[in-house]
Amino acid sequence: MGKEKNNFNLKTPKGTKDWSGSDALLRDRIFTTIADVFKRHGGTALDTPVFELREILAGKYGEDSKLIYDLQDQGGEICSLRYDLTVPFARWLAMNPDVRSMKRYHIAKVYRRDQPAVSKGRMREFYQCDFDVAGTFDPMVPDAEVLKIVTEVFEGLGWQGRYSIKINHRKILDGVFEVCGVPAEKIRPISSAVDKLDKMPWADVRKEMVEEKGLDGAVADKIETYVVKKGTRDLLETLLKDESLLANASAKAGLEDMGLLMDYLEAFGVLDRISFDMSLARGLDYYTGVIYEVVTEGSAPAVSSSAPEAEKLQKSAKKSKSKGGNADDDRSDDPTLGVGSVAAGGRYDNLVGMFLPKAQIPCVGVSFGVDRIFSITKARLERENSAEALRSSEVDAFVMAFGGKGFNGMLTERMSVCQALWNAGVKAEFSYKVKPKLPQQFKAAEQGGVPFAVILGEDELANGKVRIKEMGLEEGHPEKEGVLVDLANLPAEIKTRVARKQDQASAVTQQLEGLNVNAPTN
Amino acid sequence: MGKEKNNFNLKTPKGTKDWSGSDALLRDRIFTTIADVFKRHGGTALDTPVFELREILAGKYGEDSKLIYDLQDQGGEICSLRYDLTVPFARWLAMNPDVRSMKRYHIAKVYRRDQPAVSKGRMREFYQCDFDVAGTFDPMVPDAEVLKIVTEVFEGLGWQGRYSIKINHRKILDGVFEVCGVPAEKIRPISSAVDKLDKMPWADVRKEMVEEKGLDGAVADKIETYVVKKGTRDLLETLLKDESLLANASAKAGLEDMGLLMDYLEAFGVLDRISFDMSLARGLDYYTGVIYEVVTEGSAPAVSSSAPEAEKLQKSAKKSKSKGGNADDDRSDDPTLGVGSVAAGGRYDNLVGMFLPKAQIPCVGVSFGVDRIFSITKARLERENSAEALRSSEVDAFVMAFGGKGFNGMLTERMSVCQALWNAGVKAEFSYKVKPKLPQQFKAAEQGGVPFAVILGEDELANGKVRIKEMGLEEGHPEKEGVLVDLANLPAEIKTRVARKQDQASAVTQQLEGLNVNAPTN
Repeated sequence: MGKEKNNFNLKTPKGTKDWSGSDALLRDRIFTTIADVFKRHGGTALDTPVFELREILAGKYGEDSKLIYDLQDQGGEICSLRYDLTVPFARWLAMNPDVRSMKRYHIAKVYRRDQPAVSKGRMREFYQCDFDVAGTFDPMVPDAEVLKIVTEVFEGLGWQGRYSIKINHRKILDGVFEVCGVPAEKIRPISSAVDKLDKMPWADVRKEMVEEKGLDGAVADKIETYVVKKGTRDLLETLLKDESLLANASAKAGLEDMGLLMDYLEAFGVLDRISFDMSLARGLDYYTGVIYEVVTEGSAPAVSSSAPEAEKLQKSAKKSKSKGGNADDDRSDDPTLGVGSVAAGGRYDNLVGMFLPKAQIPCVGVSFGVDRIFSITKARLERENSAEALRSSEVDAFVMAFGGKGFNGMLTERMSVCQALWNAGVKAEFSYKVKPKLPQQFKAAEQGGVPFAVILGEDELANGKVRIKEMGLEEGHPEKEGVLVDLANLPAEIKTRVARKQDQASAVTQQLEGLNVNAPTN
Repeated sequence: MGKEKNNFNLKTPKGTKDWSGSDALLRDRIFTTIADVFKRHGGTALDTPVFELREILAGKYGEDSKLIYDLQDQGGEICSLRYDLTVPFARWLAMNPDVRSMKRYHIAKVYRRDQPAVSKGRMREFYQCDFDVAGTFDPMVPDAEVLKIVTEVFEGLGWQGRYSIKINHRKILDGVFEVCGVPAEKIRPISSAVDKLDKMPWADVRKEMVEEKGLDGAVADKIETYVVKKGTRDLLETLLKDESLLANASAKAGLEDMGLLMDYLEAFGVLDRISFDMSLARGLDYYTGVIYEVVTEGSAPAVSSSAPEAEKLQKSAKKSKSKGGNADDDRSDDPTLGVGSVAAGGRYDNLVGMFLPKAQIPCVGVSFGVDRIFSITKARLERENSAEALRSSEVDAFVMAFGGKGFNGMLTERMSVCQALWNAGVKAEFSYKVKPKLPQQFKAAEQGGVPFAVILGEDELANGKVRIKEMGLEEGHPEKEGVLVDLANLPAEIKTRVARKQDQASAVTQQLEGLNVNAPTN
């Protein structure tokens, strides 16, 4: 064990934190919700090492490469911690050229040696939840399914009417820049400037274009007429009447894609969750087609997501976005994004080819920002005084005993009853004391938020009976003192009561969430 | 995106691997099985950062500290990747002195810069699944629950009768050494030698004691008379008649603990899974009480776990254990352990105090070696030709369409049907082609191991009907050509069939596993 040392710096490294108790449980439920949606769509899990050979990550993140964590050279290979889950996925595809198509999901931590801001949720270690479809398919079909997945995740999380999906298309955007007269070499920098429209007003963006990036003022003004546009099918129809745009090959291809996408989103029943937003540019260079970002108010009460409402949502989200930082890198969970964005993604057809040109595989995907989704969900549960938000375990029953003078504590009896519950799949606990006092046992059950007490009394047990008492019933409730049941039926009796309580709880939650607003129709 | 670079070394770092397809799915199921047991016993999740301040890990792993991965000093704190999950848990307890008791579980990767042997499953990055109970309680109560958890995990994995739990107690062992005349300063080195009895014969262990560690030969011979003993209550009774042992305070305390533990294991209904094995010493110095290790033959057919059979199991497991390596460090998932051990743990009452003496909290826990559990489970499923072992996703239905001349592919119809299935919680896929051919669609369903095809035909759909066809039915089966159902009932019809198929599958599995051997009685 080596020598003792008592002057430890008792903390986690800067920008990292421990997750425990009710926070860990709630985050775990969010992971489960997201993974269930991924699996429902045929997603298969891919798990890659937390570190990669350094050369795999090199040249993928532009100037943010400086944020990569390196492992020390201890002899052997030179490695770095992964920065996102997308590059490892592309590396895997290149290493497995037999796999020509794949729906993969990956829920794991990534690492960025950025300036942390723990209070804002900008961490150096954080989770990403990614779903990507790799393969050559007919246009926009997987793209539409990825967006359908986005809606299922947020509706599975109970966010009906509280989020909006902004979409745009890199080819439309590039076409607009060409039509407006942006020189070819300035297209990416100007696109980056447009991407800041959710953080700063047009005047500031224009200033950056003209003063910093040397764009002609008249060109910038022309760009403005496009990037302020928002809508759905109406906007698409307007653009399809724009002769100069249609004459541009890139814009035309993008508009055709967008038409198909809207048809498919309609078939999936989710077109009303989408806002076609021409100011959305996304920072990362690797996007080649449709791009999207999910915004939410987060802490606002439920509102309808009809078009004007959705726009209100977005505006509010923009206002709350933080400025500065490395806004150019933001596939989604990036700590540098403001609080408004909770998921993002798009099509990237050339990334796999960077590893193996002959194994080029087009991809489209989305990444969910779990830390933000967690914060918003937790705030809502707390506002609603949800018992769920406060629990740290999921225990259903606390097995306790009481007796009179000379009471031996009934430890082995409590163990034996717990055994029956566990073997039947019931989550159960008991006191680790040989002779615990009844109030202590009730207090432990209360502190754990355990809904049911199972109480053993010597006389009752001798007759094959135990008492089930629902915790927290009010005075005067007919079952306040509990009900006696046959020991042999105890697991079934507890299961019935747990199921009933859960049904009641979810009915309350549904009322609170106003599920009627935007619920899927079948 | 930086410059392209096409001469990548396309691989994962040495000693690490990607997990994908059916392997990833099977491992995921193992995690779920284990986590479900942990939660059933009131375990709460704790997630700590993948790296810790280096000083936190320093002095905890003895000479294996050289296997710790360090992060490069890029300015700021000096950090290292975690080596196990136990030290971070102890650090967390020391940081949270308000928490005086806790059942925590942690399923996560740990890192050891050891010489990898991928074919033997000895990796540099591997998962540990830990459950620990921290807190001051009456003796042996949490210890017994941890062992009950071990049985539930392996029985949940379908290993009934295929594993055995060896237990011993550090205080008994230390008492034996004292009684035999081992000098105080030689107790830990001699204990380490005893620990090798599962890898080498007594003659070699004796040689190490006498020639390397300078123990008197007569003392070694006396030790032998104890460490060869195995049994359950019978062994305990024999030892309780040993006057010289009872006169030793440490041995006496250990034997009292062991008596209580056996009573509690009996109350939990699992005493028959346990073998009291005096040769079990465990390498890590930090154990202070009961210690245990789970062994399995792995690839052997199901056998009864009655006492002599269990012993046979252990002997066989020992034979297959690999020699050499860093046998002194093996809390459980340690790659240096042989293939025989699949879980291990014990009581460690002093570790938290190394971080904060005034926050001393006794702990007892277990760590499951998931990589080994995975290999053994996979081999069994393959032997049984289980379809489960071959699937990489869990999709229930593949939605396809066919039609005659001028057929448009019915893409949006397929999307709309998928939408109905997804919204009902059914896992479903469809072809991403606009006009896929029927054989292509069937082939995709077959390759994915999807059990049901949902077939849309133009005429049938016009009448509100779709066809469900179970894949792989033999010629002549009454439903070989599928059954027509109302589109409105499709989700329910699929769910009924999926549930029926799962019931059939689990009935077959239970037969194969001979669940009757060791099944819990209620």
